[in-house]
Amino acid sequence: MTETIICPGFKAAGVTASIKKNGEKDLGLIVSETDASAAAVFTRNIIKAAPVIIDEERIRKGRCRAIIVNSGNANCCTGIQGMDDALVMTRATASELGISEEFVLAASTGVIGEQFPIEKITAAVPGMIATLSSDGFTDFARAIMTTDTYPKIVSQKGNLDGKVYTVTGIAKGSGMICPDMATMLAFICTDAEIAPDILKEILVTATERSFNRITIDGDTSTNDTVIIMANGCSGAVVKNDAQKRTFQNILDDTMISLSKMIVKDGEGATKLVEIIVKGAGSHEDARVVADTVADSSLVKTALFGEDANWGRIIAAAGRSKVPVEPDHIDIFFDDVLMVKNSTGCGGAAESAATAVLKKPEFSITLDLSIGTGYASVFTCDFSIDYVKINADYRS
Amino acid sequence: MTETIICPGFKAAGVTASIKKNGEKDLGLIVSETDASAAAVFTRNIIKAAPVIIDEERIRKGRCRAIIVNSGNANCCTGIQGMDDALVMTRATASELGISEEFVLAASTGVIGEQFPIEKITAAVPGMIATLSSDGFTDFARAIMTTDTYPKIVSQKGNLDGKVYTVTGIAKGSGMICPDMATMLAFICTDAEIAPDILKEILVTATERSFNRITIDGDTSTNDTVIIMANGCSGAVVKNDAQKRTFQNILDDTMISLSKMIVKDGEGATKLVEIIVKGAGSHEDARVVADTVADSSLVKTALFGEDANWGRIIAAAGRSKVPVEPDHIDIFFDDVLMVKNSTGCGGAAESAATAVLKKPEFSITLDLSIGTGYASVFTCDFSIDYVKINADYRS
Repeated sequence: MTETIICPGFKAAGVTASIKKNGEKDLGLIVSETDASAAAVFTRNIIKAAPVIIDEERIRKGRCRAIIVNSGNANCCTGIQGMDDALVMTRATASELGISEEFVLAASTGVIGEQFPIEKITAAVPGMIATLSSDGFTDFARAIMTTDTYPKIVSQKGNLDGKVYTVTGIAKGSGMICPDMATMLAFICTDAEIAPDILKEILVTATERSFNRITIDGDTSTNDTVIIMANGCSGAVVKNDAQKRTFQNILDDTMISLSKMIVKDGEGATKLVEIIVKGAGSHEDARVVADTVADSSLVKTALFGEDANWGRIIAAAGRSKVPVEPDHIDIFFDDVLMVKNSTGCGGAAESAATAVLKKPEFSITLDLSIGTGYASVFTCDFSIDYVKINADYRS
Repeated sequence: MTETIICPGFKAAGVTASIKKNGEKDLGLIVSETDASAAAVFTRNIIKAAPVIIDEERIRKGRCRAIIVNSGNANCCTGIQGMDDALVMTRATASELGISEEFVLAASTGVIGEQFPIEKITAAVPGMIATLSSDGFTDFARAIMTTDTYPKIVSQKGNLDGKVYTVTGIAKGSGMICPDMATMLAFICTDAEIAPDILKEILVTATERSFNRITIDGDTSTNDTVIIMANGCSGAVVKNDAQKRTFQNILDDTMISLSKMIVKDGEGATKLVEIIVKGAGSHEDARVVADTVADSSLVKTALFGEDANWGRIIAAAGRSKVPVEPDHIDIFFDDVLMVKNSTGCGGAAESAATAVLKKPEFSITLDLSIGTGYASVFTCDFSIDYVKINADYRS
């Protein structure tokens, strides 16, 4: 990561507050130099972490100046004390920055149910603020990692009516990723100018197209949060439909790139696989089948074993509760037709499919031969390392 | 297995037909010496194996004389040829036994989508029939194993109005076990006399209480089959309500014992864990929460790691789509209260819970503090060996 990533009008930092046992960076901050529009999507889990509850309330104003994020502790199932700690975390940040507490959002990620180390955080805030810089995004990205093996940042430039603007996104992922969720943690900064209601609409659409289309283990976090801030520093304005479409495209691209990075870096993952379902009775049917295949432990272990075991794929489709035609399913590995009308295509197809499975990235397409319903989801394989990582997570 | 297991009026056999690559037994047969009542439950997967389709038709008569079962090939997604092969399999058996083809059922288990080795089976049938014996159940149980590490047989005696009768059950399991299913393969023989409609009613109830309450990986097979035959040889008659209750109890016991054997022998499993949910708004809500916890890869890997990571348990409950009170969930490991009102009970409870997790069998109870809904499900942990077994399954 030698490239310097910035977003005009924003500063970021990432420091060590000794929350994580391993001494890595574990506290990060993003600050907009000016008042910014903001929008967010959060976990659909009924059990919500304390910072999620606070952010859901505050984001209604559509404004934000700073986001403070810690890793190493989820501040979830921590009771009234945890709520108080989350408020103290934003208050300390607001106080040091000299801004209103209402414009500070918070996010936490890590172990659920352990009391929150608020003293470590308040002690580290002043020092962190002193290190804020326009090229601090990589430090921030490192500070929010849990079992991620590398920081995840994407920065792109766009052009609106002759004005160049930037979109910079940072995410963390790895475990507890599921399409049925807002997502893991992701923070997007842009210096375009966008009203909060438009920003929300574009963010929700982009989330559907990106973070809601990835799965690692079918589990759903209590802390998932995506926040976007738009401070308008570039002078580029997103207001009419054409401008919205342009910005939607660049935000989709940014968030899809982050999504794929998350799946590739899924706990123990060795492969990035797109599951595509077409020919379904509806888009919703296609999505249910795609998710069922993408979350099947038996499919995912076969992917790890580079085994073109399509029987597990068709069995997952069959148990998805979606009406499928049992005798009319075709399955492709990339463009290799391996199964025609629910029956294997034989040795040559098997050899070609096996070659596809050895690739680090490929697609599996199910054609249900019923209608025009379409969906896709990114998944990864299920490896021995997934079990090792998750068996020992709290140790 | 030195104990001899029998069921009066039944013979069984298990032989090697060279379907499996490893030379183990792979073809089994159970024959009732007299015409027997029969009932069955089958997979709810829309994709059904050929023998399931045939059995579903034939079982409507409520009579059965013989069941032929192979491992090593599921005869699923094998097209018209596969249907023809399944018919040939029952025809060859009927012909050698001198009985009507209509009274022969079939079951297959193994890889999906490979053409069925019908010649190997027809070649082995005469020799297998020659080895039929009243103590052949253990050979039969071995012949239907796939990734099972030991044969699963339970035999019990009951007494009805002074007449002693026997219930002998054989099952195979291991992968693709899920509560949303009829089940894996199980065959129950009894020398009690029971009309087919009563037999069906008791079997469905027992299945709900046993095979539908276990989960190994959330996947659902295309071949799951439970068949019971009752030949009446003992003279014990199940007809009135008291007799039905007596027989229901013994069949429940038999099938629950087989279910627990299946979970204990789950692919790579090292622990048998009962997930109990009480205090839910309804029994159905309780069941959905129990299944979501029991199928969570993150919960199951934590069980393998002997880590009392209750945050993953509460997060699974929260994403189950069942209305839970986020702040009013209690969690017990056996009788250790680890979480009260969704907050951890601290160090002493943690130490006690960790000791529970080191046991090979224990329970986890979630009290949702809403109503009286109750459900339980047996699950196992998710180990490194699960991945190893399933990555290489077809090799």
